[in-house]
Amino acid sequence: MFNQTVFKILKPANEVFEAFVAPEKIKNFWFTSSARWEQGQTVGLRYEEYNADVSIEVLEIEPNKKIIFRWGTDGEGNRVTISLKELDQASTIIEITEEGFKEDDDELIRNLIDNKEGWVYMLTCLKGYLEFDVNQLKGAIVK
Amino acid sequence: MFNQTVFKILKPANEVFEAFVAPEKIKNFWFTSSARWEQGQTVGLRYEEYNADVSIEVLEIEPNKKIIFRWGTDGEGNRVTISLKELDQASTIIEITEEGFKEDDDELIRNLIDNKEGWVYMLTCLKGYLEFDVNQLKGAIVK
Repeated sequence: MFNQTVFKILKPANEVFEAFVAPEKIKNFWFTSSARWEQGQTVGLRYEEYNADVSIEVLEIEPNKKIIFRWGTDGEGNRVTISLKELDQASTIIEITEEGFKEDDDELIRNLIDNKEGWVYMLTCLKGYLEFDVNQLKGAIVK
Repeated sequence: MFNQTVFKILKPANEVFEAFVAPEKIKNFWFTSSARWEQGQTVGLRYEEYNADVSIEVLEIEPNKKIIFRWGTDGEGNRVTISLKELDQASTIIEITEEGFKEDDDELIRNLIDNKEGWVYMLTCLKGYLEFDVNQLKGAIVK
């Protein structure tokens, strides 16, 4: 099982890419990041509003095109692929796929739904930040 | 099975309520509405960006507190409850529950995930509109 979310951002691909990998940018719509995302690095992420900390392993980086990372550092976490396709200088399609959900997990459906919630929310916050310079959309989902 | 999404909007409850029931407001973050939402009325909704039309039956309205509607007009559609709880004059918790998913549907998981996508997306667009006067977050999910 996997979750996929596809979203249109009215910015060139390099701006969307930088929003994820640059610590001074990603914090405006998602996590606070301990370092710039580089291939082969482990990066600590913190979502202040939910007092949540997680590390990720950045498995692959193709500048302005692709980021692949794995949640956690034990090699067991789900794998996330962020793909960017620039339509023109003014718009980019971003596709996020998370895979690795365990089909025999009693909580599978709930996990998939919660996971989808997170991706759609982050992508809408990303759009607000990049297109409208709004950085206070995040942290509003009540858990 | 049901989906529930809970979200915090930094506006008083009457502003959140009006955003849904007033045609000149709801179009800024969700559907174009054929009329003001009133209890007992059928209202036509159109999501321009997806060329999607749907009617709803407004089953119950409690001003500034609750809206209950049913998708479609055949009495078979899912039932949606939008509840507003004003924390103070500056913030409201909005809770949206959709129920009626058929558990024997082969597409149940996909339906629940797509449905969650829609609610989270709409709520984030609502926050962008009410708090930051941004009305161009919608229509960005690629289907």
